[in-house]
Amino acid sequence: MDEFMQAALEEARKGLAEGGIPIGSLVVHRGAVLGRGHNRRVQKGSVILHAEMDALENAGRMPAAIYRESVLYTTLSPCPMCAGAILLYGIPRVVIGENRNFRGEEELLRSRGVQVELLQDEECIALMRQFIDNRPDLWNEDIGV
Amino acid sequence: MDEFMQAALEEARKGLAEGGIPIGSLVVHRGAVLGRGHNRRVQKGSVILHAEMDALENAGRMPAAIYRESVLYTTLSPCPMCAGAILLYGIPRVVIGENRNFRGEEELLRSRGVQVELLQDEECIALMRQFIDNRPDLWNEDIGV
Repeated sequence: MDEFMQAALEEARKGLAEGGIPIGSLVVHRGAVLGRGHNRRVQKGSVILHAEMDALENAGRMPAAIYRESVLYTTLSPCPMCAGAILLYGIPRVVIGENRNFRGEEELLRSRGVQVELLQDEECIALMRQFIDNRPDLWNEDIGV
Repeated sequence: MDEFMQAALEEARKGLAEGGIPIGSLVVHRGAVLGRGHNRRVQKGSVILHAEMDALENAGRMPAAIYRESVLYTTLSPCPMCAGAILLYGIPRVVIGENRNFRGEEELLRSRGVQVELLQDEECIALMRQFIDNRPDLWNEDIGV
């Protein structure tokens, strides 16, 4: 597996170990990690700290020129909020671990010129599948269902 | 002015007094304020705490049924990230103070069935106009330009 998706998956597993929702993300600029994060709904009582948002927040305040050369990695297809953050900051490329368990706003991203790559990685799929089976309540809350 | 937009404008002014970007927001459920907030980019060094996100975060973890009966008030037209959060949580109605200074994702929201109301309020317009004139650098950073 790609080293950055591997690191995003490690973030997801860290979230699970904390009792949280196992989704991880990285923001990478020209091969260097700017920020990494994982879903913190449970850990911080947050409704906005999805993995991608946490990674962006941890990267800190960046000029537009940096975002425009960055890649966002996420273990799960991004929801409307996270896709919107990608569009806001003009991140040109998104690498997605899987979309079997949740199909986010890939088409919206593509329609706005974002390059979307889907790995359909078996480890990402299995981790999320098991979590959804165990905690459908938490998962539904996280996607507003 | 509508009492909730008035309260959102007060949030915006509070942000300005803190040295921040003057945008305010409220989440209202059946006439009761669930959460209020303002942009905290400067105050918290945050790239995700736009006013709408701050209001949603301050409202806390809510079941989908609550969001589905809520209204989001914001002094400025919502950017892609904030519009995405509105779509994620299925908030059915958004009241916008103005879109003269920034035209966000109103069409995307409408295309997904969200009721969007635009007040084009002179106080909201003047507050934001003055801020953008004074701090174009901060404003551009906030919208990824």
